[in-house]
Order: sequence, then structure tokens, then C-alpha cells
Amino acid sequence: MDYDAMFKGALEALKKEGNYRIFAELEREAGAFPKAISHAAATPEEVTVWCSNDYLGMGQHPAVIDAMCETARACGTGAGGTRNISGNTHQHALLEAELADLHGKERALLFTSGYVSNWAALSTLGSRLPNAVILSDEKNHASMIEGIRHSRAGKVIWRHNDPEDLDAKLSDLPKEATPIVAFESVYSMDGDICPMEEIVEVAEKHGAMTYLDEVHAVGMYGPRGGGVSEERGLADRITLIEGTLGKAFGVVGGYITGSEALCDFIRSFASGFIFTTALPPAVAAAAQVSVAHLKRSEMERMRQRAQVKKLRARLDAMGIPHLPNDSHIIPVMIQDPVKCRMLADILMQDFGIYVQPINYPTVPKGTERLRFTPGPLHSDDDIDHLVRALETLWRQCALARAVA
Amino acid sequence: MDYDAMFKGALEALKKEGNYRIFAELEREAGAFPKAISHAAATPEEVTVWCSNDYLGMGQHPAVIDAMCETARACGTGAGGTRNISGNTHQHALLEAELADLHGKERALLFTSGYVSNWAALSTLGSRLPNAVILSDEKNHASMIEGIRHSRAGKVIWRHNDPEDLDAKLSDLPKEATPIVAFESVYSMDGDICPMEEIVEVAEKHGAMTYLDEVHAVGMYGPRGGGVSEERGLADRITLIEGTLGKAFGVVGGYITGSEALCDFIRSFASGFIFTTALPPAVAAAAQVSVAHLKRSEMERMRQRAQVKKLRARLDAMGIPHLPNDSHIIPVMIQDPVKCRMLADILMQDFGIYVQPINYPTVPKGTERLRFTPGPLHSDDDIDHLVRALETLWRQCALARAVA
Ligand SMILES: Cc1ncc(COP(=O)(O)O)c(C=O)c1O
Ligand SMILES: Cc1ncc(COP(=O)(O)O)c(C=O)c1O
Repeated sequence: MDYDAMFKGALEALKKEGNYRIFAELEREAGAFPKAISHAAATPEEVTVWCSNDYLGMGQHPAVIDAMCETARACGTGAGGTRNISGNTHQHALLEAELADLHGKERALLFTSGYVSNWAALSTLGSRLPNAVILSDEKNHASMIEGIRHSRAGKVIWRHNDPEDLDAKLSDLPKEATPIVAFESVYSMDGDICPMEEIVEVAEKHGAMTYLDEVHAVGMYGPRGGGVSEERGLADRITLIEGTLGKAFGVVGGYITGSEALCDFIRSFASGFIFTTALPPAVAAAAQVSVAHLKRSEMERMRQRAQVKKLRARLDAMGIPHLPNDSHIIPVMIQDPVKCRMLADILMQDFGIYVQPINYPTVPKGTERLRFTPGPLHSDDDIDHLVRALETLWRQCALARAVA
Repeated sequence: MDYDAMFKGALEALKKEGNYRIFAELEREAGAFPKAISHAAATPEEVTVWCSNDYLGMGQHPAVIDAMCETARACGTGAGGTRNISGNTHQHALLEAELADLHGKERALLFTSGYVSNWAALSTLGSRLPNAVILSDEKNHASMIEGIRHSRAGKVIWRHNDPEDLDAKLSDLPKEATPIVAFESVYSMDGDICPMEEIVEVAEKHGAMTYLDEVHAVGMYGPRGGGVSEERGLADRITLIEGTLGKAFGVVGGYITGSEALCDFIRSFASGFIFTTALPPAVAAAAQVSVAHLKRSEMERMRQRAQVKKLRARLDAMGIPHLPNDSHIIPVMIQDPVKCRMLADILMQDFGIYVQPINYPTVPKGTERLRFTPGPLHSDDDIDHLVRALETLWRQCALARAVA
């Protein structure tokens, strides 16, 4: 069999439908976020990044950078082993304690990424809890879906953010089922926030375990950055809270928090935790400083909210439609992969604005979008420049439509 | 349902059979590897690490540390997004080029870990190649097993390192099958090396794709550290070579290399590649420097081989049985989880020697072992101290000696 021909065929199909991905190549500039150097053109150019998930710019925070560098100098660049075999360091212990405290839980457990934490925790719970049935919000992230799939547990999809539908589906389960309700706080592509209290109440009514992904909320919601569950005072009613160190905390890695027994169980049985090199101590130390900083500092969150509000108001004033939501994520719907890529290309080339076109499989086909994530480091001038660029483009498009 | 009680019950069972894991908590000391500070006792103590997978001590190499620190200072601590959405940096591009060159392949693709690279690549190939059947060596690593399982492709297990059995199993496949032969070069727990040429020949005879995990070989075998496939001049006959940046290269992360079309295919379709924050540029830069260094420098490999040989000779002279193999891994079989833990505890407490007891599920029950990985930084005195400690213990415990 000619494997390469098969691969090429599949890639050609992607290209035809406009879903072939071209990565922008950036060089981040600490101290100058959200500016970065783009390596797309022949000569590198400065661009403003409008789609980063380093939502608060913590990746350039001097204390976070210092922690990474000082720990690398003191302890080296890697962990040197799995957590069990020589890779468990003091820095991991300190970070896990910091995270358990962040969510008011007994314990936390680190993974190499948020993806792996979801995949490993859900696949372990689903495969090892007797008669497990995972009730999964229909818009859950790929990492949760793959974890559920891998567990081969029963799976029931409930309508997005719909506690009534969840209630009905829980009522339908056989008596012996062990239900696990899996959902997110902030859905990253639409930016909508779940009705957490209602979901928790429904789960409690049925004695179901709750599994909450706070990946797009940790650091940004709640007085200490403990996520939407902290903001709404619900963390202690949720069995397991999962998060990432790679978005608002500005580093990389993932984690779960919960009871001592729950975390020890996952630690002891999850393949994706056991059989992999631990995060470098330098990464753990940087993340720990970032988490600790955002527990105390409100400044980044306040300024993020202000800039999000400004951009939204400006878009509204201009009549550029965006999905309404209560989060920091502003999706401008384009609904066509080719147009979406074209707009992004023009923004990059003509305006030095980098916003990645979001297409399938990240969002369903026909819902392609430009997704803006204003942060505390976007200046009012940055917002102004973006809005003017969009205005120009929208006018040209209208023009194109008019003469078409 | 009382979930915690369920978790506790499962943990109790592990404890009863001696398979409950207690992690040693270390503080690595750059400049002093393989020494580290143990946080096990009330007061931290210095120990010599004998079970690290930072096989060549590259995690403390000044140039590797400098690369991490300089890049963190220049670019910050994280990538800020997935590879597609703002997280693709210049450092990723440079590292992928370095890795493609290492294995003489057209292209490489990074993942957050070796575990994820195996899981994501195998699950994508297995689920997307028409009529895929994965022929998996029976001792393949958990990350490959889970990837195969996740793909739901056909799976055929062949006898460990047995090309004849592989040949027979390939012959048994139906005509329309798309066979993928998955195996490792150095098996990490027994340290044995596969008969690569024979396996490749059998695969070629049947037109099968070859998938080779070189995780425990990259950096250490071959004149440029390209692994056993480089050492034996077979790299160009293998379809996909997978490796890690977390062991001999001393950092963290994983990768695959292969044809342009193959890597682009995995890049475009693998959930575990697409939906996760990219490695920090600082991690990529450190890894790139480490890979480049080991392409040029033979010193670390030569000195590793010398120290491995010395320890083996000393164990033989004392009649301490260890599994014979051609690699850098020296497994001393204990074959009982409780004894294995006891020996490791005494070595740590009385002799300042840290070697993690290896138990289920890392190895099959009844094959528990102490696994020593001598490296270029273990001094002759370190070896002497280890051997004397083992001698004392072996005498005290009256364990069977090979020459008894
Ligand atoms: C909802 C959600 N969960 C989990 C993840 C994975 O986290 P990480 O990037 O740390 O792998 C992501 C995105 O990457 C996400 O959007
Ligand atoms: C054979 C093999 N493949 C893959 C892995 C995973 O690599 P990583 O530690 O980079 O996740 C390991 C060990 O961790 C391994 O032993």
C-alpha cells in the first residue's frame, strides 16, 4: 500500500473544503506582549496577537520568568523521570499544594497538560467505577470526549448548558448506574458560561459525581482566580475540578483537584499519569508563582474585564456581530472557512493583526469564526487599531456583496 | 454512592499486595547530578540517584539550561496557545527541523510528551487508515497500547522481539488489511534491544508500515544519537520513528518523524496534537540545544557505556544477578513487591542511594526489580559505594546469588 498517497489524499480533501491548517509562526516577546514577531513573511514583522490564551499575560510576568530561570539554574531543565521513578520533585509537591488550596480541595494532581488531565482522569473514572455512566455536555472539549471514549463507560450526551435535560437523562438511568456529570465552566469557542448552580443541584439530587473543566476560567474568575466555581461559591459542591497551567497561568501543564482519596486513586491507576515523564521542576515552579500571584492580585482580572468591555462596545457600535456571552471571549462569526482564512490573512498582512481563523474540527463546520481574547496588556490604541481594521474590512465585504 | 469509599477500597487492595506507590520527593541539583536532595526524612538529605532517565545528565548541561533561561527571558514562560491558535513559535519550527535531521526524515512533529506522541499517532493511524491492523510487540509501552486501544483498529500481538512470530501473524492477515508494525528499540524495563533488521525485513516483505519507539535510545545510540535505527543504518527503512525529549535529552516533550505527508496527516487529524497548549518555547529551545549537542558530542555516550560496563562487571563479580542485555539499563530482579520496596528503603535510609522499586503496573507482578541506570556522571566512587551497599544487603537478606 502507498501510505503517503493515502495521507496526501486526506490532506487534499481538507484543502478543498478550506480546512487545511496553516500555522502562523511567531516569536513571542517577553515585556512586549501582546506584540510578537511573525515569521510568516520573508522578513520577520511585528504583529499584535489577538487570539492568545495566555489570557492575562502571565507568561511574561517577571516573577514567573524568574521562577522558571532560577529553578532551571538550580535543578536543571527536566524532571528526569516519571513521578514514580525519580521524577517527583519538591517543586511538584509545592505546586500541587498551591492548586489544592486554590480550589479549596484536599489534594491536587499534576499532569503534563490539561488535555492529558481530562483524558486520563475521565478514562480512569469511567473504566474503574462500577457501572459508570458519564453524562457529558454536548459541547465538551475534545480531551473530555476522548477520555470518555477511551473509558468505554456508558455515555449519555445532554443538551448544552441545559440542567433540565440533564435531569431527565439522569432520571432515565438504571438504578445501579454510577453517574458522573462532566461539563465546563467557560466554553472556549462560544465563550458562554454554564448555569453551574442548577447543574450542581441536579447532580446532587441524583447523587451524581460532578466533573468540572475550568480550563478557560482558572486565574480569571473568582476573587483568587479559583474559577467560576469559586466566584459562585460552588467549589465545595463539585467532586473534581480540572484546570490548566497553560492558559491564564501562562506556563504549561494540567491538573485535577478533589478529595485525598480521589486524587490518590487517579495517581495510582491512570496510565496517562503513571507512564510519562513529569513536568520539569522549572515549569512547576513558574506555574506555582503564577497561581500564587493571581490569588493575591486583582489587577490583571480587572484590566482584562475593562478591555473586553471596551472591545465589545466598539464592535456593537460598529454593528459587527459577535456571540453574546459573560466571559472574556469575543467570537466574531464568519461561518465560512475560506472567508474566515481570507479575513485573517488580510488582518495579518495589511494591519499587523494576528487572529487565527477558527475552523473545523475546533468548531463545527459552518460556524467558522475569528475569536478575539482581549487581555490586560492590550492598550486602548490596540483596540482602536483592531476596530478600524475590522471596519475597513467589513466595509469592503459589504461592497463586495453589493456589487456581486 | 460513596465514591470516596470506593476509591479507598481500591487503594487498600493495592497496599495489601505491596503495589501502593510512595514517591520519593527530590530536589535535583544542577551541577551535582546524580546527587539530589531527598525530602523524604524530616531534614533534607543528599542522595545519589541511580534510577534517573536523564540518562546522560543533559538536564544540567550549561548550554541546555542557558537555552531555557534565555528563551524564557526573551519569549516568556509559555506558548500561549495550541500550535494552531497562536502557540506555534519559531522555537518549535527550529526543534522540529533539528529532529527531522536527527533521524534523516523529511519532517518531525512535536507533542507535549512521548506518551502523547505514541498515543496520538497510533490512535490516528489506527482509526484513519482503511482496514488498519496494528501488530504490536507484546512488551510495548503503555502509551502505545493505549493508542492502539483508542484507535479501535484491529490489533494483533506478536511475541516479544520475535520476527518469526511477526512473519506468521502478518501472513495470517486478510488481503485487504493495512498492517502497521509497532515496536520499540530498547525496552526500558528489561533493557533488551530488538532485532531491528529482521523485523524491518519481515515488515518490508509484507508491505507493512513500521512504527518504532526509540524513547530509550535517542541521544544514546548511533553516532549522532539518532537511536538504534541510526546505529544499525536502518532509519530510512522505518516509516515512523518516535522519541522523547524527556529522557536522554534532559527536558520534556515527545515527537514523531517521518515523511512530509505522514507528519502533515498526524498534524491535521490527531486530537492529542490539535487540542492542547504547545510546549513552551523555552522548553523547545532547551531541547533543540540538547539534541544538537548530542549530535556532535560522543563523550557522554562513551562515558555512559564505560560506567555501565563497570557496574555490570562488579555485580557479576559479586554474583548479584541482573538481566543480561546490550543496553545501558541494569535490572536487578527481586521478584517480590514487598522485598523490593524494603531493599530500596534501606538503600535510601542507610546508604543515601536512591533507586525506585519497580513494581506493577510498570512491570508484571512477580518480576519486581531494582533498575539501575548508570550514566556518565556516576563516578567510580559512586559505583563502588553502590556495590558495597548491595553486597551488604545481599548478605543480610540472604537472597539467592547467581553463583551460589
Ligand atoms: C475546555 C478545555 N479543556 C482542556 C483543554 C486542554 O488544556 P491544555 O491546553 O492544557 O492541554 C483545552 C484547550 O487546550 C480546553 O479548551
Ligand atoms: C517506551 C516508552 N515510550 C514512551 C514513553 C513516554 O515518554 P514520555 O516520558 O516522554 O511521555 C516512555 C516512558 O515514559 C517509554 O518508556
